[in-house]
Amino acid sequence: MNNYFSTRNTIREYSDAKVPKDLIDKIIRDAAQAPTTGNMQLYSVIITESRENKDLLAPLHFNQPACKNASLLLTFCADFNRFEKWCKFNNAIPGYRNFQSFISAILDVTIFAQQFNTIAELNGLGCCYLGTTTYNAPEIASLLKLPELVIPVITIAIGYPKNSVQEPTERLSIEAFVHNEFYKDYSKETIDRLYKEKENNPTNRKFVKENNKQTLAQVFTDIRYTKENNEIFSKLYFDFINKNGFNFPK
Amino acid sequence: MNNYFSTRNTIREYSDAKVPKDLIDKIIRDAAQAPTTGNMQLYSVIITESRENKDLLAPLHFNQPACKNASLLLTFCADFNRFEKWCKFNNAIPGYRNFQSFISAILDVTIFAQQFNTIAELNGLGCCYLGTTTYNAPEIASLLKLPELVIPVITIAIGYPKNSVQEPTERLSIEAFVHNEFYKDYSKETIDRLYKEKENNPTNRKFVKENNKQTLAQVFTDIRYTKENNEIFSKLYFDFINKNGFNFPK
Repeated sequence: MNNYFSTRNTIREYSDAKVPKDLIDKIIRDAAQAPTTGNMQLYSVIITESRENKDLLAPLHFNQPACKNASLLLTFCADFNRFEKWCKFNNAIPGYRNFQSFISAILDVTIFAQQFNTIAELNGLGCCYLGTTTYNAPEIASLLKLPELVIPVITIAIGYPKNSVQEPTERLSIEAFVHNEFYKDYSKETIDRLYKEKENNPTNRKFVKENNKQTLAQVFTDIRYTKENNEIFSKLYFDFINKNGFNFPK
Repeated sequence: MNNYFSTRNTIREYSDAKVPKDLIDKIIRDAAQAPTTGNMQLYSVIITESRENKDLLAPLHFNQPACKNASLLLTFCADFNRFEKWCKFNNAIPGYRNFQSFISAILDVTIFAQQFNTIAELNGLGCCYLGTTTYNAPEIASLLKLPELVIPVITIAIGYPKNSVQEPTERLSIEAFVHNEFYKDYSKETIDRLYKEKENNPTNRKFVKENNKQTLAQVFTDIRYTKENNEIFSKLYFDFINKNGFNFPK
C-alpha cells in the first residue's frame, strides 16, 4: 500500500467498463471521513453519468480526452447553501457569505475530493483532475443547476484504466519545497540545481522543442498558463463567486 | 487498509515520542506524488520542530492543545514564489499574480496536505488540522519568514497518539451531499431529515445544552463560527493575500 503512494499516476484513458454505482457510493462514504472544518462538510458532489450530460460538460473542459471517455465525471463544489439552509431552518442566523467561509469551503471540498481520488485509485480505478473547472465555472454551474453559495471547484474524471499504469510523473526533490523552522528563499543557483532534473527530463525537453521555446519555463508562461488567460479567468471566477453569494472585501 | 478510511479520526493528544525526521521525509516525498496543477507543485511546507518556535506559533493558533503538545507543526503554504523565480531565471515572463493562480496554488497545497495527512495516519501517526492558519496568516507569515507569493493555508499538528483511537466522528449520510446529474436543492423537510441524526447525537446535544442554545445550528452561528469573526478574518486574510503579491480583481 505504501508503494501505491510513491507510484500513483493520473489516468486519462479508460476502458468501456462502467464503474458500479455501489462502489462509487462506498468510496464517497469513506472519503467523507476525511477532515472537514468543524464537521460542517462544506461540499457537494454532482455525479454526471449520462452520455448527454457528459457531452454537454466536455466543451466546458476544452474537450480534454479524459473528459470524453470517462465512465463518470464528478464535479466537486464548495457548498454553503446546505449549511446556511440548515441554520435558517433552525432559528440560527448564518454569517457565511464572506471570504473566510469561502476559503473554509474550498479547503473542505479539496480535502474531500483528494480523499475520494486516493480511495478510488486504491480500488483500481483511474482518475484525472481536469483542472479546468474554475475557468468555465459559470457555464458548469448553469448546466448542473447549482444554486447560490455552491461553487464548482474540482472535476475528477473516473473509469477503469485502459492501459497498464505508466511510470510515476517526475517531481521536484523534497528539498525544493520543505523548509526547516523558517522559509529559506531561493537564489538563482539553488533554483538552477532544484529544477535541473526536470529541465533535462526527455518528455519536458520534447515539449520545449515542439513548441519552439528556449526554456521549459517558457512553455508554462507562453503556452500552458499565460498571463492573459489567467487574468481573463481570474475575473470570470472572482465575479462568479461574488455574484453567487460570497461577498469578498473591497 | 480500506478499513482505515472509514474509521480514521483526528488525534489531538500526543505522546512524548518524537517523530523521526526520515519518516517525515518519506511521507512528504510520497505525498508529493499527489496530483498537482500542470506539475507545478505550487506549495511549500515549513516544519516547526523547536520548542521555541512551537511556543511562538501556539498563540497564533489560539493555544489549541494539539498545537502545544505536537511533536511537529507543519505549515502548508500556497507558493508561487519558487515558480515565479524559476520563470524569471529562465527568460520567461510569469503571469501568476492573480486570483486564478492563487486558486491553483490553494488547491495544490490542500491536495498535498491531505495526501500527507493520509500517509502519516497510515504510518501510525496522529494528525490534527488546526483550522486557524487563515485567521492569523500575517503573524504566522512573519514568524516563518515567508516572502511575497507564499501564503499560509493549512497547519497540521502531528505526533504519536497518546490514547487509543476513538470512534470515527459522525458524518452526514452521503445522500446529503451527492447529487445525480443535477443539483437538487433542499426543502425544510429534507434538511430536517438529513440533519436529524447529527442533532440527536449525544455529544452534539451536550454542546447545545452547555452553551445554553436552543439548536445545534446556533452553536455554530453564535459561538463557533460567528458572522462578526468571519468578517474580521475575511478582511485580514484577503488584504494579506493581496498585499503579498496576488492582485485580485476589483
